[in-house]
Amino acid sequence: MIARLNQAIRRTGAPIVVGLDPNLKFIPDAVKEQAFREYGETAEGAAEAFWEFNRQIIDGIADLIPAVKPQIAMYEQFGLPGLAVFDRTVRYAKEKGLLVIGDVKRGDIGSTSESYAIGHLGGTQIGGRIVRGFDEDFVTVNPYLGSDGVKPFIEVAKKEDKGIFVLVKTSNPSSGELQDLVVSGPDGTSRPLYEIVGSLVDTWGADLMEDGYSNVGAVVGATYPEQGRILRKLMPHTVILVPGYGAQGGKGADLKHFFRGDGLGAIVNSSRGIIAAWREERYAEYGAERFAEASRAAVLAMKEDLKQAVG
Amino acid sequence: MIARLNQAIRRTGAPIVVGLDPNLKFIPDAVKEQAFREYGETAEGAAEAFWEFNRQIIDGIADLIPAVKPQIAMYEQFGLPGLAVFDRTVRYAKEKGLLVIGDVKRGDIGSTSESYAIGHLGGTQIGGRIVRGFDEDFVTVNPYLGSDGVKPFIEVAKKEDKGIFVLVKTSNPSSGELQDLVVSGPDGTSRPLYEIVGSLVDTWGADLMEDGYSNVGAVVGATYPEQGRILRKLMPHTVILVPGYGAQGGKGADLKHFFRGDGLGAIVNSSRGIIAAWREERYAEYGAERFAEASRAAVLAMKEDLKQAVG
Repeated sequence: MIARLNQAIRRTGAPIVVGLDPNLKFIPDAVKEQAFREYGETAEGAAEAFWEFNRQIIDGIADLIPAVKPQIAMYEQFGLPGLAVFDRTVRYAKEKGLLVIGDVKRGDIGSTSESYAIGHLGGTQIGGRIVRGFDEDFVTVNPYLGSDGVKPFIEVAKKEDKGIFVLVKTSNPSSGELQDLVVSGPDGTSRPLYEIVGSLVDTWGADLMEDGYSNVGAVVGATYPEQGRILRKLMPHTVILVPGYGAQGGKGADLKHFFRGDGLGAIVNSSRGIIAAWREERYAEYGAERFAEASRAAVLAMKEDLKQAVG
Repeated sequence: MIARLNQAIRRTGAPIVVGLDPNLKFIPDAVKEQAFREYGETAEGAAEAFWEFNRQIIDGIADLIPAVKPQIAMYEQFGLPGLAVFDRTVRYAKEKGLLVIGDVKRGDIGSTSESYAIGHLGGTQIGGRIVRGFDEDFVTVNPYLGSDGVKPFIEVAKKEDKGIFVLVKTSNPSSGELQDLVVSGPDGTSRPLYEIVGSLVDTWGADLMEDGYSNVGAVVGATYPEQGRILRKLMPHTVILVPGYGAQGGKGADLKHFFRGDGLGAIVNSSRGIIAAWREERYAEYGAERFAEASRAAVLAMKEDLKQAVG
């Protein structure tokens, strides 16, 4: 699957993933009012507004980018109707030729991680049929439980030709609270925790290579460019999923060291900066009605900005 | 909410939570066949089998224990029909007077954790109404992203009088891979990572106290009794949710140090040991048909065994 992602990055010239993380604040009033008229001021109404918003944005940008990354929390917030729209969004994006990274940050003890992996990347045999839950191409995985919490995802990814991105150094302000802690090894060396996780990612990925890159990727925040530089070297075959660009503060020029010399090796996420572009001064010309066109313009601007990173 | 949990532990005399983690292997053939006849060999059929299995077990044990802990991964595996049964199980257990710990192990950057917290413990205002997603009493939370990934859960818990259990030292074999790493502080001290997380839990919980215990609890595996002893002292006001008893290898006598002198301070989870008891030699007399009675007998045996821990 990572080879497909790299091909799509080359084809579009855009190492960009758009975070489909809707929020009622980001959705134009007309879209919300229509949804609430039809379904009432309910979870179903909110979910319908998310769906219409996502659909128009996907239609507006699908030809420009390789992938989208729906953040499941935004949908899970509204319970079952929200998750039905998560599922519908995943399916629709795939129909439109996009790869889908499910930003689910799951992780548990072995047998439980296996269920999550099956639910998002694989399937269960029932009688003569394979029953699939959600069906993303990649998911994000939390490593706090260690190898036996991550390996079931790797096994399912291998079987299904899919991939994962393991959290290494996250983009949020307090990510350093645990991830930057300095760990002493039995041999007297000391390294921050994120480097240890980075080394594990490199090891876990060795068995899942395609065209020089691994199907086991890493999440490293744009807000920590220095750590990005270190991790890039530590994980030479790893594709880095980079959140924190734009609204969270990261800029294109800061991202140079996340990429490899071949122009691949990283894919940069923007969520609010793209999907809520219509609310920004610089895209005011589009107005609320043409929000998907504003998103398209924001993707094109991001593609330009990232040229400073990819060269 | 933690005061309600403690009251329920005192009332039942059972510091026990039963993990409702169904698996098609654990479900008697008659239950599965009936579900598949009605819904086909589909996700809906599997989910219906889960529901019937859970319902009978809840009916069989609700008077003996304070709480159940459905593991959402088992349901998420079957996508939307599975999650509908997760929701139905949460509601049914609450109707039967049980507290519900949603074992969801969520955790993300701040604004995203807020959505998870709202989706599982709180609600969103839409127009004049509060829309709730899932509606557990407690959830488990992964701390890898640091304070700003955990605090939104604490804020929602505070507002809603609910609680959380933060992963500190998990029960699985590779939990030590990250959690036991020895961290050097700037002052020259060194401590394992789980102790640092334990101290954070103690700090996070200080603001959410009820009757001497905090609504911010911790997860510490029964499989690591020595770490349990250390963490019990480090987090004096924390209720410890203890997985790993029974099928994962932990025994009652090992759990003494997880409890405080007042007989409270810990609640021990058993999943397979209770819900799949009918498959064990020692409960063979019940047969597959009376699986819920076998679960009841297994709860009573566990209650006896835990007397060695609580005294």
